[in-house]
Amino acid sequence: MSLVLCGPLAGAELATWQRCLRQAMPGETLHASPELADPAEVDIALVANPAPGSLRRWPALRLIQSLWAGVDRLLADDSLPPGVPLARMVDPAMNEAMAETALWAVLSLQRDFFAYARQQREGLWHQAPQRRAADLAVSVLGLGQMGGTVARRLMAQGYRVNAWRLHDAAPTANAATDETTSETADEAAGLAVSAGAAALPGLLARSDVVINLLPLTAATRGLLDARFFAALPRGAAVVNLARGAHLVDADLLAALDSGQLRHAVLDVFAAEPLPAGHRYWSHPAVTLLPHVAAQTDPRSAAAVVAANVAALRAGRPLAHLVHRARGY
Amino acid sequence: MSLVLCGPLAGAELATWQRCLRQAMPGETLHASPELADPAEVDIALVANPAPGSLRRWPALRLIQSLWAGVDRLLADDSLPPGVPLARMVDPAMNEAMAETALWAVLSLQRDFFAYARQQREGLWHQAPQRRAADLAVSVLGLGQMGGTVARRLMAQGYRVNAWRLHDAAPTANAATDETTSETADEAAGLAVSAGAAALPGLLARSDVVINLLPLTAATRGLLDARFFAALPRGAAVVNLARGAHLVDADLLAALDSGQLRHAVLDVFAAEPLPAGHRYWSHPAVTLLPHVAAQTDPRSAAAVVAANVAALRAGRPLAHLVHRARGY
Repeated sequence: MSLVLCGPLAGAELATWQRCLRQAMPGETLHASPELADPAEVDIALVANPAPGSLRRWPALRLIQSLWAGVDRLLADDSLPPGVPLARMVDPAMNEAMAETALWAVLSLQRDFFAYARQQREGLWHQAPQRRAADLAVSVLGLGQMGGTVARRLMAQGYRVNAWRLHDAAPTANAATDETTSETADEAAGLAVSAGAAALPGLLARSDVVINLLPLTAATRGLLDARFFAALPRGAAVVNLARGAHLVDADLLAALDSGQLRHAVLDVFAAEPLPAGHRYWSHPAVTLLPHVAAQTDPRSAAAVVAANVAALRAGRPLAHLVHRARGY
Repeated sequence: MSLVLCGPLAGAELATWQRCLRQAMPGETLHASPELADPAEVDIALVANPAPGSLRRWPALRLIQSLWAGVDRLLADDSLPPGVPLARMVDPAMNEAMAETALWAVLSLQRDFFAYARQQREGLWHQAPQRRAADLAVSVLGLGQMGGTVARRLMAQGYRVNAWRLHDAAPTANAATDETTSETADEAAGLAVSAGAAALPGLLARSDVVINLLPLTAATRGLLDARFFAALPRGAAVVNLARGAHLVDADLLAALDSGQLRHAVLDVFAAEPLPAGHRYWSHPAVTLLPHVAAQTDPRSAAAVVAANVAALRAGRPLAHLVHRARGY
């Protein structure tokens, strides 16, 4: 049996993935060109945004391992076989990259570096009062692998951090998933955690910066809307590092235009690439990234894939399985 | 005897300093309006960029305590009385602010956030390869209070950090200064430290980012020149957080224009505010800050002042004394 790599990887990126995966699993056969693989021989699909419908080609799958963390697009693909275990990527280097992006965004907001960039373009020399990290209350929405890493890193940097998750306790897909354990550890380490829709307005009211790292599900789609922005103190900032569909664009623009929000840092968008002419491109209070907050790093992700492949071959429990009804 | 506050502080900033200083030294008399003070009664001057020549007004001084870290302008003032002890500010909150600015600059360079800001202005959506912190070699020039704090913070974040100082061992002005002790501690903690002009080209040759935190002296003025930039690998970046006169502007612009340097982050300039029309304002590879990398924080600095004032009153050794011949 063999593995197939499905998705629009190409060029140097594809070559790096192939090299890292083959080094991590020297005993496995990996097909990087799906059209050359015999579908009956492929029991594991490594997927990176595969074309919708393309998974139908593989009738013998026993594991679908995503190379990306988010699985909302996969779950919306009607060629996803219902009975096959689906695993998310949990890559320490990707979590680290997300923590770096969040830290950069919060540092930039705390110390007015976005405002100074605007001043440079306008030829202005003006010194803003300097704020300490401890002067800022930062709320992290979502307490999975990424939210937890981000919250801990911001705490270590001196910010007052609160974390929030939608559910009182995260259901686990099977015994091998590790979210519940790590959340308990976060709370034990002094991270303030609240949960549930009722707790959100109170948390927002005392947030200077909100960072969204929620999974995209029916319950979180459109959560960052006019009501959400109105619950924040005037002059707060929003950092969206999760999915574009979490956020109602018209409501965000209205909140920025009215001054209710001071700034938004956006890495993800309803349509990507962000269409030319969209107001985000030129809005002075928007910092826009082209979906680069955290990319999977093949150097570490290959070992994560290899561990799950070895578990499947040995009949051991698989890690990081997606709970399909929950949506992540 | 009493204290006088000398410098162009005004408005809310002056009010904050007065409140913090009076809270920290309830037993002392502090004159915030020098023209109302009796010069014969003033034995301590707290100075924040005083007007050149203005120190002649105080004949009875026994301590000049700077509220800023850099003393190069003070040492160039011919009204500075030769026999009076001069102390620099060593404010933990200011060191912390400097570490934040350095971390923001290095994160921005590592993760291409300056390039993404340029892309946003140009309407471009392009994802650069993601680099890890450990992929970057960062050299910190200067290993005083600020350089040491910056180097340790960058190490903790995962960067490969080398520190460099001009002299093999920092001479101490008196037994109460603490630089030598802390440098030894840095080296013991695993920070790679080199010293002396001969060691610099080799260090530069393996630096992706150089951060300048040297004191401005005759030996360091103009150090960042064409020869310095040529010693860096092509595509390196320079971050100047110390003094504008460390850097030869024409040489930096030539290195940026030729592509030898990828980017420069500049907080300090030969003339401040930076004159209108200077090429730095509009250069696409320059990120410019209006001298805000680290401001003294009155909330913590007042306690540092109070400790030195109490030491003077009690006849104990003073802390953070400037070695005038050395220049810092």
